[in-house]
Amino acid sequence: MNGSYKPPIRWGMVGGGEGAFIGGVHRIAARLDGEYNLIAGAFSSDAERSKRSAATLGISSDRSYADYKDMALAEAARSDGVEVVSIVTPNHMHLPVARAFLQAGIHVICDKPLATSAQEARDFLAEQAQANALFILTHNYTGTPMVRQARQMVAEGAIGTLRHVQVEYAQDWLTEPTDESNKQAAWRADPSKSGAAGSMGDIGTHAYQLACFITGQRATQVAADLTAFVPGRKVDDNAAVLMRYENGAKGMLWASQVAPGNENALSIRVYGDKGGLEWHQENPNRLWFTPFGKPKQLRTRGGAGANEAANAVTRIPGGHPEGYLEAFATIYTSAASAIRAHKSGLEPAPDLLLTTLEDGVHGMSFVDAVLRSSAGNAVWEAI
Amino acid sequence: MNGSYKPPIRWGMVGGGEGAFIGGVHRIAARLDGEYNLIAGAFSSDAERSKRSAATLGISSDRSYADYKDMALAEAARSDGVEVVSIVTPNHMHLPVARAFLQAGIHVICDKPLATSAQEARDFLAEQAQANALFILTHNYTGTPMVRQARQMVAEGAIGTLRHVQVEYAQDWLTEPTDESNKQAAWRADPSKSGAAGSMGDIGTHAYQLACFITGQRATQVAADLTAFVPGRKVDDNAAVLMRYENGAKGMLWASQVAPGNENALSIRVYGDKGGLEWHQENPNRLWFTPFGKPKQLRTRGGAGANEAANAVTRIPGGHPEGYLEAFATIYTSAASAIRAHKSGLEPAPDLLLTTLEDGVHGMSFVDAVLRSSAGNAVWEAI
Amino acid sequence: MNGSYKPPIRWGMVGGGEGAFIGGVHRIAARLDGEYNLIAGAFSSDAERSKRSAATLGISSDRSYADYKDMALAEAARSDGVEVVSIVTPNHMHLPVARAFLQAGIHVICDKPLATSAQEARDFLAEQAQANALFILTHNYTGTPMVRQARQMVAEGAIGTLRHVQVEYAQDWLTEPTDESNKQAAWRADPSKSGAAGSMGDIGTHAYQLACFITGQRATQVAADLTAFVPGRKVDDNAAVLMRYENGAKGMLWASQVAPGNENALSIRVYGDKGGLEWHQENPNRLWFTPFGKPKQLRTRGGAGANEAANAVTRIPGGHPEGYLEAFATIYTSAASAIRAHKSGLEPAPDLLLTTLEDGVHGMSFVDAVLRSSAGNAVWEAI
Amino acid sequence: MNGSYKPPIRWGMVGGGEGAFIGGVHRIAARLDGEYNLIAGAFSSDAERSKRSAATLGISSDRSYADYKDMALAEAARSDGVEVVSIVTPNHMHLPVARAFLQAGIHVICDKPLATSAQEARDFLAEQAQANALFILTHNYTGTPMVRQARQMVAEGAIGTLRHVQVEYAQDWLTEPTDESNKQAAWRADPSKSGAAGSMGDIGTHAYQLACFITGQRATQVAADLTAFVPGRKVDDNAAVLMRYENGAKGMLWASQVAPGNENALSIRVYGDKGGLEWHQENPNRLWFTPFGKPKQLRTRGGAGANEAANAVTRIPGGHPEGYLEAFATIYTSAASAIRAHKSGLEPAPDLLLTTLEDGVHGMSFVDAVLRSSAGNAVWEAI
Repeated sequence: MNGSYKPPIRWGMVGGGEGAFIGGVHRIAARLDGEYNLIAGAFSSDAERSKRSAATLGISSDRSYADYKDMALAEAARSDGVEVVSIVTPNHMHLPVARAFLQAGIHVICDKPLATSAQEARDFLAEQAQANALFILTHNYTGTPMVRQARQMVAEGAIGTLRHVQVEYAQDWLTEPTDESNKQAAWRADPSKSGAAGSMGDIGTHAYQLACFITGQRATQVAADLTAFVPGRKVDDNAAVLMRYENGAKGMLWASQVAPGNENALSIRVYGDKGGLEWHQENPNRLWFTPFGKPKQLRTRGGAGANEAANAVTRIPGGHPEGYLEAFATIYTSAASAIRAHKSGLEPAPDLLLTTLEDGVHGMSFVDAVLRSSAGNAVWEAI
Repeated sequence: MNGSYKPPIRWGMVGGGEGAFIGGVHRIAARLDGEYNLIAGAFSSDAERSKRSAATLGISSDRSYADYKDMALAEAARSDGVEVVSIVTPNHMHLPVARAFLQAGIHVICDKPLATSAQEARDFLAEQAQANALFILTHNYTGTPMVRQARQMVAEGAIGTLRHVQVEYAQDWLTEPTDESNKQAAWRADPSKSGAAGSMGDIGTHAYQLACFITGQRATQVAADLTAFVPGRKVDDNAAVLMRYENGAKGMLWASQVAPGNENALSIRVYGDKGGLEWHQENPNRLWFTPFGKPKQLRTRGGAGANEAANAVTRIPGGHPEGYLEAFATIYTSAASAIRAHKSGLEPAPDLLLTTLEDGVHGMSFVDAVLRSSAGNAVWEAI
Repeated sequence: MNGSYKPPIRWGMVGGGEGAFIGGVHRIAARLDGEYNLIAGAFSSDAERSKRSAATLGISSDRSYADYKDMALAEAARSDGVEVVSIVTPNHMHLPVARAFLQAGIHVICDKPLATSAQEARDFLAEQAQANALFILTHNYTGTPMVRQARQMVAEGAIGTLRHVQVEYAQDWLTEPTDESNKQAAWRADPSKSGAAGSMGDIGTHAYQLACFITGQRATQVAADLTAFVPGRKVDDNAAVLMRYENGAKGMLWASQVAPGNENALSIRVYGDKGGLEWHQENPNRLWFTPFGKPKQLRTRGGAGANEAANAVTRIPGGHPEGYLEAFATIYTSAASAIRAHKSGLEPAPDLLLTTLEDGVHGMSFVDAVLRSSAGNAVWEAI
Repeated sequence: MNGSYKPPIRWGMVGGGEGAFIGGVHRIAARLDGEYNLIAGAFSSDAERSKRSAATLGISSDRSYADYKDMALAEAARSDGVEVVSIVTPNHMHLPVARAFLQAGIHVICDKPLATSAQEARDFLAEQAQANALFILTHNYTGTPMVRQARQMVAEGAIGTLRHVQVEYAQDWLTEPTDESNKQAAWRADPSKSGAAGSMGDIGTHAYQLACFITGQRATQVAADLTAFVPGRKVDDNAAVLMRYENGAKGMLWASQVAPGNENALSIRVYGDKGGLEWHQENPNRLWFTPFGKPKQLRTRGGAGANEAANAVTRIPGGHPEGYLEAFATIYTSAASAIRAHKSGLEPAPDLLLTTLEDGVHGMSFVDAVLRSSAGNAVWEAI
């Protein structure tokens, strides 16, 4: 609550209507810091459904669209049209929708993964090189204060030269064959809607992106062994990957949606020649720092050992837990800063740490290399 | 996102301007579920400061007040006046402000503790017996899903007959003498503004209220030993209390603001003749359930063992942590339901589990008994 | 494995025969470092039973006694008689047995608590003032490396001036009425055999002794509220105590044997004006150190932050857990050092940190004060 | 303490003299349950050193040998000669020593890994097919009660059909280049003494063996990426391995000795189609059981959910931690039972769960496959 009043950004959504969990998450994230005002949407490809969702959300009927293309054109034509749109559709629609809005000069906040294939993603990147609107991917875990802290500590040399990265994201909700009536599970298990990668695209990408974000390194090679354990499942539900990073560091990545007892067990441990760091999404306000040869330290958000990177995105005092929604809100609030800067003809400030289109393309290339590797019986594939 | 659209409630604030941590918390909590629209405020008794805060928050200058009495009168007179006001001033102003708004027929959401003395609180209760506006105290931890779960489990007999309650709230921020420039610390350490209780009023009340909320019992007697460890401090910064509950259960309560390493370490353990429960605020999505003679169970928010009471206030899937702000938002969103019911002439639904004025008075009586007991060298005092 | 060979000490036992859990613990503890050779015993007051136990333990029949007095006399008369005896009988027999052996010039290692009443303990202390044999109480938790570490850190000023002590020992095995056939439970619940204190004598004394050991302070006053929750139980099974320590520090102590889900949950947290320490018996290789205003540190046995006091009693590398038996063995091994020193006419080295008869008397005085306080409705009683 | 007295087994050692950590561990393990009497040894290949160690241990000089071959012959010739010998030398001496004693009809308890190469191990297995003496490998973690519990639970179907195994053993003691004066580090880093595998042979074998023990499955194929991060190191200090198990389950194994903050962080998580299990060596008295779709359970040694397999090797009540030495002692005590059975012409009881020579050969084949795979750039190699 400093500085002068900034009116909320005019915001719209594509997808995220009735019954869509992630749509509600985006709305909470956008509201949390008061930076957005939801005024338009194409909440469903089913016109009736879209209208119903819009009404429930208090959106006037003339701003409720059944078709995202109509929405892009109509909103771009209005002086009070949306400045930015969030895309929360199944994966295969991310890029078509993004294309329509970016072409209309409307900024895009897009759910991950970027696309259903690396080729599609690369083409899109090339095509949008000259776009005059922002594209922001919601890799929400990067909004977590202690993830930011870890990133800064690595950059400052706290762990020395990176040697090994253990990252994993385990869930259990797909342990059993999925009921057709579970919409979440249904489209994620359908390669035509989610892409050829299952657990790898859905959660493995989060794990990999977290590793890159914290270490400042990208992987160059992967050797992967993907499995679909549940009979009849068309995409992987368990993925084991060996990783090699740019600087010679090694790593392992495990993604599973069939690991009973795991809810959203995203965790990362990074080790260098001077120390280690460990973070768990399920208790995200804590970060272990283990300098070699010294006592282990537990750094807490808002606590004595928190650094500037963490403090910059901290809302409440230490010991009062912030969670998933706060981290997601940080992505939205950072996006708002970028959008306001864009109005003034400025680039987004680098410390906003937004995930870019190019990051998204790299993520898709990673998934692609994993799929190729697994198809080749875990042969090393370059990313 | 179900049912028909409900326009946000017209909302104002007294206190919570520049530099006030808790004001920002209330605003986030109110925004999170989109149920409130902040349109007026008396953010500071300093007119200039109040105006500046209002401007930063995007409130039009004619709805920015230097005096809460003016605000109550002016807003009550407007057809688009605030329906509810939040009071986030230092403690000694809670009741005077509440009185002004309730008299004007405007609902009140008030920070805890209710008042600076039990007598003041009791008088207020008597005086407001016929008020036609709601009074809601923000005992925010009661909005936590796993606290709700614990309450329901106790009510359903999961732990049998209650025998012992261990509750504590430990912090360390007052370990050293406080700088006058720390406004938070300054008014809390000034008996004329915060009441005669220090740690007991500030955090001990949260601990006690949590015990009552979960167990469904109130204490009848306390024996307390309060200490002001930091030289020159006028109120207690450490409080040790023996408790006796209605049904014959015993308990201990520890509140401290001088316990290094503790940030907001509110925790509770309750034991009956059939089982136990344990919850920690700093990792609030987990609840231990320990039925006697059976394996220990860890129940998680959104997980397989979550009950209806928890699920009713859960926003996101298990493993994605919700925290302090989400619990606080649940109080606001529940208050919104109560306010809407009131418009229709209905009582608040009991499952909203709002903290009432009577609860607040009981809390003040508890603090009063603690102070008397400690003054009497830890003699038992009735609440 | 340094220095010259020291033949094992000739060792006997009184109590600890068939079916006695604690007898087996003493034997493991004595064997672990190879310092003792068990050659005689009066394992039960039932002659047949005693003989059977002796045989099972490989003790020759002429060294198996039905009566401890006979044993003391006979062993003292032999040139190869026992040098030390361990007393592992129910509490009421501790002092009579100790008297017999000390009078015979045989050292005594005695289970806690020392006696069944403070008066009995004080009388014994006076009576034994001139005894020329050692008396060692097995307060086994003091043998834990990280407890030793905590003690040294407090002594060295790591936490500054002590302000508050939270100590507790919670179990659940007496949650329900006890079957007569459970011998352990039976004598502990019989005031004529265990003393007037139940949970307080059995485990509360451990908690209190741990607090004294780590802080270097004794309590001067207590205010206690004891309860026997289980119908028909003659001694307390739950005890809540307010504490005041020598230097003005405050504290709370909770002992319970009716807290479902707690196995042997002995834990302590101590806070001074510069930092805090926290230790849990159930995971004893870890010690939290929380210097005020700095990151929290986790010190581990055998790890980088372990100090000399811990290292002196550490057998294996960090990360390989040592537990209850190792700590108990440290008491035995330290006793062996004291016994060997005694042969050479020396006092026990102070860094053996053995619990003395005087310590035991103080412990009984503590229990006595607690009982008096509770009888007086939690009035403060001096220790 | 049941049944009739069994005189201790006559026991000797090869290796484990002055300065050898693991020798002391074996002696404690052998003493803990009182089943062994150490009466002879060849503690060092340096005669003087061996004699000095023997003297310190109270072994008469005529039972102290400079050469293990002399010892085997001399002891076999005595009517009171050792019945069993423990081999605690560097790895390359394991088989030569074992051969000498087995040929002399003396049982062998041998440190792991079995040998320095798979071929050597296989040859030894063939050669010893007709030996009339027992060979027992000390895979000590299998002696842990909750590891036994996990094994039984898997066998009984608690997790259903196995799908994925995450196992790892992380240390940090080799993070920096090792000083020649550190004997432990020196021989382990010398391929001629420890074998071609570094971290994989030293700790990776423990991890793999634990996975086999608990799941009842062996791996059929591995794809490994080994690294020597520390400049000048001749063997791997970090190993990442993809695993495929007999029944189609997948897995990952990570072994590292350069992961700062890890002491002996051996942990395993196994997942089937009905549930999961998780165990950590550093807090070994706990086992997580996560049945799919039900609340998570924490099973504790000695607690309500402990099964027969755990209880059979449990010495003390729940909550009193047992650790590394107790598990090691269980191997020794089980070996004693096997030795006594052998005297009576019986096979070892299967529930002793001793690690056999054939198990050891399989372990060496695993290491061999890992080395071949890594040499082949992580190509799949059959075990």
